[in-house]
Amino acid sequence: MGKEEYLGSGSERIDSLLLFSAEIDKMTAIERRTLLVDRSRRENDAEHSWHIAVMAMLFEEYALEKPDVGRVSEMCAAHDLVEIYAGDTFAYDEKGNLDKAAREKEAADRLFGSLPDEKGKYLRALWEEFDAMETADAKYAACMDRLQPFLHNVLTGGHTWVEGKTRRAAVERRTAILREFMPALVPWLTANLDRAVERGWLLP
Amino acid sequence: MGKEEYLGSGSERIDSLLLFSAEIDKMTAIERRTLLVDRSRRENDAEHSWHIAVMAMLFEEYALEKPDVGRVSEMCAAHDLVEIYAGDTFAYDEKGNLDKAAREKEAADRLFGSLPDEKGKYLRALWEEFDAMETADAKYAACMDRLQPFLHNVLTGGHTWVEGKTRRAAVERRTAILREFMPALVPWLTANLDRAVERGWLLP
Repeated sequence: MGKEEYLGSGSERIDSLLLFSAEIDKMTAIERRTLLVDRSRRENDAEHSWHIAVMAMLFEEYALEKPDVGRVSEMCAAHDLVEIYAGDTFAYDEKGNLDKAAREKEAADRLFGSLPDEKGKYLRALWEEFDAMETADAKYAACMDRLQPFLHNVLTGGHTWVEGKTRRAAVERRTAILREFMPALVPWLTANLDRAVERGWLLP
Repeated sequence: MGKEEYLGSGSERIDSLLLFSAEIDKMTAIERRTLLVDRSRRENDAEHSWHIAVMAMLFEEYALEKPDVGRVSEMCAAHDLVEIYAGDTFAYDEKGNLDKAAREKEAADRLFGSLPDEKGKYLRALWEEFDAMETADAKYAACMDRLQPFLHNVLTGGHTWVEGKTRRAAVERRTAILREFMPALVPWLTANLDRAVERGWLLP
């Protein structure tokens, strides 16, 4: 980690912020199933989080309720931080998703607990809001979180779908929020699901 | 690229947003000089942009003028997009920095020009604001952009400093905005510069 190299600032508060900043660099080592668009390798959590933070600046006009894009950008950047300790759970891994909530809660306690109290609460609240998918900001962030890997699958021969022997209905469930909250994207989503089944990327 | 695989949505506007979303995935292939904290490899532009977007949620109390953190998060996510076509210019590469502005302007025309007009203007304005470093948001984003690689150098044996045979004065110039706009960090920055010179990571 190189943290033995860390020279204290003389302020416990500043030290905890800087060490947290160093710790979250581990997001670059958490691999997702999704391939990069150029198919060179799988993407990691840092890349995915960045990608949807930018996409959040593009699609807000199609959201049924107006999101606060700046806030969504923060939420996107922060939404997977707990995976530093909980690991990435593949969306279509039914077993892994059974204990996901418990693993992520424990990870959140550890990760956000290392920050000054109100900073930890701030980041934790963003993550919990994202996960609950009830506010306009959280719904829109969740849409970006579903749209980006869908787009990557479309552009990479359905890579993670094929690998996971995924059924169309599973992708429909996973992208339900996207179809509900951003109906203008439905024709494109449906046409791509049809094509994916035709090409054998998805099981019917 | 896999874009030959892209199935049109029937809306030129939605297509341009989705294809832009796919195009920016190239940020994952733009290597920076900075090592990841675990020293396993260099970081890329997507990872760096994500990293400073999260750090922007941590340090705002130390900024001399109050930034809008949500807006800064967007700015951090977008600030290096032009490097998709202009490439990364190492901060201490004097020659590369001579034509950086011209290369990046051309890249911005091409990249942001592919978006619906007001979306392109929005992202371009964020980037130009960041670059001009005049507003509180831009100054704070620039501070995160300087603090993150400084922290990585501190934790990786001064990796990019050593590699570039860098002088302390060059790092001081590069981090001037950080010392001016976030004076509470000066003792830590100075102690680390002192140590870096002592250890031979920086030339005096």
